[in-house]
Amino acid sequence: MASTAGKVIKCRAAVAWEAGKPLVIEEVEVAPPQAMEVRIKILYTALCHTDVYFWEAKGQTPVFPRILGHEAGGIVESVGDEVDELAPGDHVLPVFTGECKECAHCKSETSNMCDLLRINTDRGVMIGDGQSRFSIDGKPIYHFLGTSTFSEYTVVHSGCVAKINPEAPLDKVCVLSCGFCTGFGATVNVAKPPKGSTVAVFGLGAVGLSAAEGARLSGAARIIGVDVNPNKFQLAGKFGCTEFVNPKDHSKPVQQVLAEMTNGGVDRAVECTGNVNAMIQAFESVHDGWGVAVLVGVAHKDAEFKTHPINFLTERTLKGTFFGNYRPRSDLPSVVEKYMAGELELEKFITHSVPFSEINKAFDLMLRGEGIRCIIRMDG
Amino acid sequence: MASTAGKVIKCRAAVAWEAGKPLVIEEVEVAPPQAMEVRIKILYTALCHTDVYFWEAKGQTPVFPRILGHEAGGIVESVGDEVDELAPGDHVLPVFTGECKECAHCKSETSNMCDLLRINTDRGVMIGDGQSRFSIDGKPIYHFLGTSTFSEYTVVHSGCVAKINPEAPLDKVCVLSCGFCTGFGATVNVAKPPKGSTVAVFGLGAVGLSAAEGARLSGAARIIGVDVNPNKFQLAGKFGCTEFVNPKDHSKPVQQVLAEMTNGGVDRAVECTGNVNAMIQAFESVHDGWGVAVLVGVAHKDAEFKTHPINFLTERTLKGTFFGNYRPRSDLPSVVEKYMAGELELEKFITHSVPFSEINKAFDLMLRGEGIRCIIRMDG
Ligand SMILES: NC(=O)c1ccc[n+]([C@@H]2O[C@H](COP(=O)([O-])OP(=O)(O)OC[C@H]3O[C@@H](n4cnc5c(N)ncnc54)[C@H](O)[C@@H]3O)[C@@H](O)[C@H]2O)c1
Ligand SMILES: NC(=O)c1ccc[n+]([C@@H]2O[C@H](COP(=O)([O-])OP(=O)(O)OC[C@H]3O[C@@H](n4cnc5c(N)ncnc54)[C@H](O)[C@@H]3O)[C@@H](O)[C@H]2O)c1
Ligand SMILES: [Zn+2]
Ligand SMILES: [Zn+2]
Ligand SMILES: [Zn+2]
Ligand SMILES: [Zn+2]
Repeated sequence: MASTAGKVIKCRAAVAWEAGKPLVIEEVEVAPPQAMEVRIKILYTALCHTDVYFWEAKGQTPVFPRILGHEAGGIVESVGDEVDELAPGDHVLPVFTGECKECAHCKSETSNMCDLLRINTDRGVMIGDGQSRFSIDGKPIYHFLGTSTFSEYTVVHSGCVAKINPEAPLDKVCVLSCGFCTGFGATVNVAKPPKGSTVAVFGLGAVGLSAAEGARLSGAARIIGVDVNPNKFQLAGKFGCTEFVNPKDHSKPVQQVLAEMTNGGVDRAVECTGNVNAMIQAFESVHDGWGVAVLVGVAHKDAEFKTHPINFLTERTLKGTFFGNYRPRSDLPSVVEKYMAGELELEKFITHSVPFSEINKAFDLMLRGEGIRCIIRMDG
Repeated sequence: MASTAGKVIKCRAAVAWEAGKPLVIEEVEVAPPQAMEVRIKILYTALCHTDVYFWEAKGQTPVFPRILGHEAGGIVESVGDEVDELAPGDHVLPVFTGECKECAHCKSETSNMCDLLRINTDRGVMIGDGQSRFSIDGKPIYHFLGTSTFSEYTVVHSGCVAKINPEAPLDKVCVLSCGFCTGFGATVNVAKPPKGSTVAVFGLGAVGLSAAEGARLSGAARIIGVDVNPNKFQLAGKFGCTEFVNPKDHSKPVQQVLAEMTNGGVDRAVECTGNVNAMIQAFESVHDGWGVAVLVGVAHKDAEFKTHPINFLTERTLKGTFFGNYRPRSDLPSVVEKYMAGELELEKFITHSVPFSEINKAFDLMLRGEGIRCIIRMDG
């Protein structure tokens, strides 16, 4: 048992005091976990676009001061009452969405949209008592996505914690807790491309590259990367993309360009842009009779998906997915095992690494669009 | 071998000379079947809404004079060259869409949208030589949907003919060649409601009632019929509907009414109206996490399906289907067997019957919205 159990822990955290201002490393107090909660010592965390969006808080509800971060790996320090599947010392991935195992979603065959622990981007407090576990001089610092991994210690609902193989290197598998699984799962769990099929991936950010990786591992014969930024194409080759289309290079709609390249349409399309026009294009690019398109990107509030209903009648399917349809507690441990078995090449996604003290460099890299994932080492 | 093989047959046909004018029973000449074609003696045919739409020709390309009709059962009279799976005497259902067994669709696992024989509502001639096989005094009378079953004899491409069990009563199973299979297949082949689930059926015409019947046979626990015409509700009770919603009775959107009735949404929705607003409602009525909506109705040319992409991201699926995803040659024989085994209650769909000489009465019934299917007896 850690001697810190039941006590407030003082540690370093990167606090976002204001929208768009560099994070400040502060000493914060982290309260002990309450019922159903666990306190985790974070060892490695990565920066994801979603952190940047909520830090910029353009079009998102501003919640400050806040501790961001949601892609991470760590070790359980202590557990609150009623936590029975986790114990101090367990290696874990905190996840921005949870699995209560009791609600209709958790009990359904396919949904991972837990009624209780589904993502809530505006909540800055714990679900149990509506309080924050972080404070500085007695004043609350808010949580983010229930994870707040930009802190040496954090408190997370036990339903949002995946217990994984303790042999797994946390500096690698930490990327499984958001971007990788979102894109990879969108392909392998939802689009399910048959072997030998043709897959189009719209948007070649971290999520799209993970989707392409899923297509590659599914045995797709052709993987067509579609992005308006041609700088993405070189890197995407490493993730299985065999061809590229920049919609800006064509006067015809990209749907038509793809249809001509593929004798009528792609078998699967996975949209990872967040742009509603790309969503429509992805759907209209799939072959009639059997094509399936999967939406992953988060569109802005008043976006409207529009298409002629005949595109459905001609036997196309449109689905969306959240976190690649993975259930954090039930499914992530086996994704980690896939990595351990050498089936997943997570290293390709990790292009940079900085010590915690230099976390703002990770933000700079992402704002410049450089690399895919920057790992932040909490001991540095 | 019928002695008529290879010869022109003179017989009665109901000719639509002009849009919206009563059909006229005429003596027509039916040319022998050419390569890949069969000539069929029609025994029973039924009237479907699609016949009425193309007879009215409001918003459809007018093609006159024409022999309508596409739901029917008959016996092969003679076959053209290269026809090897059909022979004179075979009991058959002609179908408005075909199966060449050679194209990418026919070879795919799921599609029934054959590249060669897919429905074409504007074509009034045979696919092989671009000619009509019907004439009066040497002037062509046009085909409809490749079937033209309102004639004692008709010529159909062999890829559009399902060979069925000769024991099956043609006056019943004739309804399988369009409406029933479209709605029933939309549910059992595409929406696939799990046992005990809740299904909403939008539109309670022949297609919607068949969809409800599919839900009943799938073991759905609740089947909610949605129609703006409350006259449809009484009949629909016989087809498994357990509850009814008339959107006009509510000030809230019907999506919300259904969500409140079902603790968040129905498990499956099947749209059989042709109205694009009902399509949007059907989709938005399904439960997040696992709901599947299936579009069956044919919307008008400039209709636009619109919804916020978040409705997909929250793990709803939208599909469309054509002829209930049945492949006419491969699948219809087994649907006939289901009927023969007592699993399908086709009798419920047959509410009227008239002799061929009174075919216009069938049109009157449909225009008045009475009954479901009126069987036309060709010997009368
Ligand atoms: N559904 C989920 O569970 C989930 C989880 C995480 C992220 N996301 C969403 O996934 C999306 C992708 O995330 P990311 O981190 O990879 O983003 P990113 O910004 O790194 O990548 C997006 C890519 O899309 C490209 N793009 C933009 N508009 C385009 C268009 N019209 N056509 C083609 N390409 C276009 C951009 O050039 C960029 O390369 C975002 O919308 C994000 O919010 C969803
Ligand atoms: N996809 C296919 O393969 C295929 C095949 C045959 C028919 N269809 C189509 O299926 C649809 C239904 O065919 P049918 O013969 O049963 O038609 P129908 O006209 O007999 O029935 C349609 C029903 O929908 C109801 N309705 C209309 N608007 C509505 C709304 N906004 N909300 C709720 N109910 C509404 C009507 O009151 C009517 O009862 C048509 O659009 C037809 O073209 C499709
Ligand atoms: Zn749950
Ligand atoms: Zn993320
Ligand atoms: Zn074919
Ligand atoms: Zn029909």
